[in-house]
Amino acid sequence: MLNKIMLEKIKQAANILEEKDIDMWMIFARESAIMQDPTIEIVVGKNCTWQSAFIINRKGETTAIVGSLEAENYEGGQFDNVIGYLKSVKEPLVKYLKENKPNKIAINYSKNSVLADGLQHGLYLNLIEHLKGTGFEKKLISSEEIVSALKGRKTNTEFLIMKEAVDKTLDIFDQVTKFIKPGVTEIEISDYIKSIVKENGYALAWDEDHCPAVFTGPNAAGAHSGPTNKKVEKGHMVNIDFGIEYKGYCSDLQRTWYILNDGETNAPETVQRGFNVIRDAIQMVADKLKPEVLGCEMDDIARSYVIQQGYEEYPHGLGHQVGRKVHDGGGGLLPRWERYGQTPFMRVEENQVYTIEPRVPVAGYGVSTLEEEVIVRKEGVEFISKPQKKLMLI
Amino acid sequence: MLNKIMLEKIKQAANILEEKDIDMWMIFARESAIMQDPTIEIVVGKNCTWQSAFIINRKGETTAIVGSLEAENYEGGQFDNVIGYLKSVKEPLVKYLKENKPNKIAINYSKNSVLADGLQHGLYLNLIEHLKGTGFEKKLISSEEIVSALKGRKTNTEFLIMKEAVDKTLDIFDQVTKFIKPGVTEIEISDYIKSIVKENGYALAWDEDHCPAVFTGPNAAGAHSGPTNKKVEKGHMVNIDFGIEYKGYCSDLQRTWYILNDGETNAPETVQRGFNVIRDAIQMVADKLKPEVLGCEMDDIARSYVIQQGYEEYPHGLGHQVGRKVHDGGGGLLPRWERYGQTPFMRVEENQVYTIEPRVPVAGYGVSTLEEEVIVRKEGVEFISKPQKKLMLI
Repeated sequence: MLNKIMLEKIKQAANILEEKDIDMWMIFARESAIMQDPTIEIVVGKNCTWQSAFIINRKGETTAIVGSLEAENYEGGQFDNVIGYLKSVKEPLVKYLKENKPNKIAINYSKNSVLADGLQHGLYLNLIEHLKGTGFEKKLISSEEIVSALKGRKTNTEFLIMKEAVDKTLDIFDQVTKFIKPGVTEIEISDYIKSIVKENGYALAWDEDHCPAVFTGPNAAGAHSGPTNKKVEKGHMVNIDFGIEYKGYCSDLQRTWYILNDGETNAPETVQRGFNVIRDAIQMVADKLKPEVLGCEMDDIARSYVIQQGYEEYPHGLGHQVGRKVHDGGGGLLPRWERYGQTPFMRVEENQVYTIEPRVPVAGYGVSTLEEEVIVRKEGVEFISKPQKKLMLI
Repeated sequence: MLNKIMLEKIKQAANILEEKDIDMWMIFARESAIMQDPTIEIVVGKNCTWQSAFIINRKGETTAIVGSLEAENYEGGQFDNVIGYLKSVKEPLVKYLKENKPNKIAINYSKNSVLADGLQHGLYLNLIEHLKGTGFEKKLISSEEIVSALKGRKTNTEFLIMKEAVDKTLDIFDQVTKFIKPGVTEIEISDYIKSIVKENGYALAWDEDHCPAVFTGPNAAGAHSGPTNKKVEKGHMVNIDFGIEYKGYCSDLQRTWYILNDGETNAPETVQRGFNVIRDAIQMVADKLKPEVLGCEMDDIARSYVIQQGYEEYPHGLGHQVGRKVHDGGGGLLPRWERYGQTPFMRVEENQVYTIEPRVPVAGYGVSTLEEEVIVRKEGVEFISKPQKKLMLI
């Protein structure tokens, strides 16, 4: 079935090739059902068995060179030319390259991003043998920046699906608000959320052992830990980090609740303050996030505000891109820490989707954390999630 | 959860290293949830996020060098040493290699087998940078022959699961025998089988568009095609190619039926002869299949018998290995055709599981084909599937 998003992404890929002055992007693959290159789902949509080349050029022309027994699987789809071969991919591939004389051929490997590193080393050696002596082996470059741009810049169709995914996630959070009460355990809350996800036919956005992640009260486990048998008590802050995969795209949101003690009608001041600082940090970032800023500059804003308000800084980045994967794209809103490599220094682009998710501990009560999703437009961001502006009281 | 099969496979891997005079096998990986090296499920069992080295040496010692945030995931499991790092895998990896001084380091790439080619090229370049100038970068070899032996040679625990998978598949074929009758379509038969699979919580052994593959009557579609709306009629031969995935292992079997015409009490002689030649070809191969024979010699036996009996030769190999994947392992029972590369010339080893699946067309009636599974023992084969000895009449 020909997929609207795939055609949009192919068009976008051609524009990116033009922008970066690269003539050709080639995904080289074999037996992709066993280890699937992450770009196959974006522009190919079907697994191949034998060595196959899926090529998009800067004019937007698409070519699939595949085993002849599979050629018909690709015909009538998004590929303008489908070339089936019997013995070896070498001859038709070299012929195609000789006819097209690309200045550079961006292929599917990347030192920095697993999402652009789908070509296995053994298969790469096969490709080099095929091209040996043709001169084209010297034109190969990494397609990292093409894939990063392609995954980051959401088309309108992609945006609408991601918006739906967020709305459905927020609906689930609303149901959870009615479920949380003193005595229920983190695991019970997690199981309740999973049952709603299953009932609706969604998938979880990440590993089920910590999706959802549920934390109640002081001394909760670390950010990527699974729910425990700890019970919700009066005087606890409760946080949930959760997302769904819906029509191939992920959501990723966090919400915070406070369980009133007997006689309380509001959260204690220290809890409210912990909530406000996170809510306000998110808004400060949203006010500055737009095309061309560096991710690390956005992390700076929230991090320095949190510290200035007297809290310890959060031990992770401020936000990441979201898309088909929950942690998607190249750059993020990340601090200048060695473990993030070059990714904090990439410029934000129009139509990228980011999470914003600072956190602070509130001694004696738990953790305050929110995670919102925004899309970057020309003049600034648009919230995809209706942001949580008030601490939810139970 | 520590897995019995995993411990058996690690022990086996150490024996294979000893046999091949290789000191060390290393699986190098990162973000394996996105593209999982096929050997991770065999000896590691858990995905990693950051660059990680999973090492087995010929003494059977196991070491995991992983990001420190994930170290606890690997502790208390099959790894004798778990080393967590904060900044880069480089220092602990080089330190480990300097302490152990391996003669060769087999790593996870392969030109010939996707099942041994889990290391992406970009990640390979990272590994080379880590090892640059240490001398170890010159000790790297492909782990292809280790992986091929490891996947091929089934432990007894693996054999027992595969036997269960085959038994359950044969049970389903028994139910199908009662379902097939004139007027039902290929798709209805396929849907019926899928409903049983689902009801029992099994998975399909291959893509659901042609698992099961159902063919009725003359002029049926090619071997890897999906079922159609063609109806079963009296005088048709019906064949089904089907397998399940059960506890992580696959089955793959074929069965043939004949639909009696009015007044018939037996199949026409030409149909019976078509069945017999396949049944007998399988037995002839089973009588000769044992450790050390070449796969192509086994294909020769069935192929020449079929031709000698006046049938056209089957347009595919005689059989393949089965395991965690339905097409598994390195060598197969394959003809000396260029498209099979070196795989027909590999020697059969003890405890490998093969299919035997010749086929002949029976003009005017359909296709005769059977597929059995056998395990190779020291003195010869043991049938895993109770072989179909009589044409099933409906």
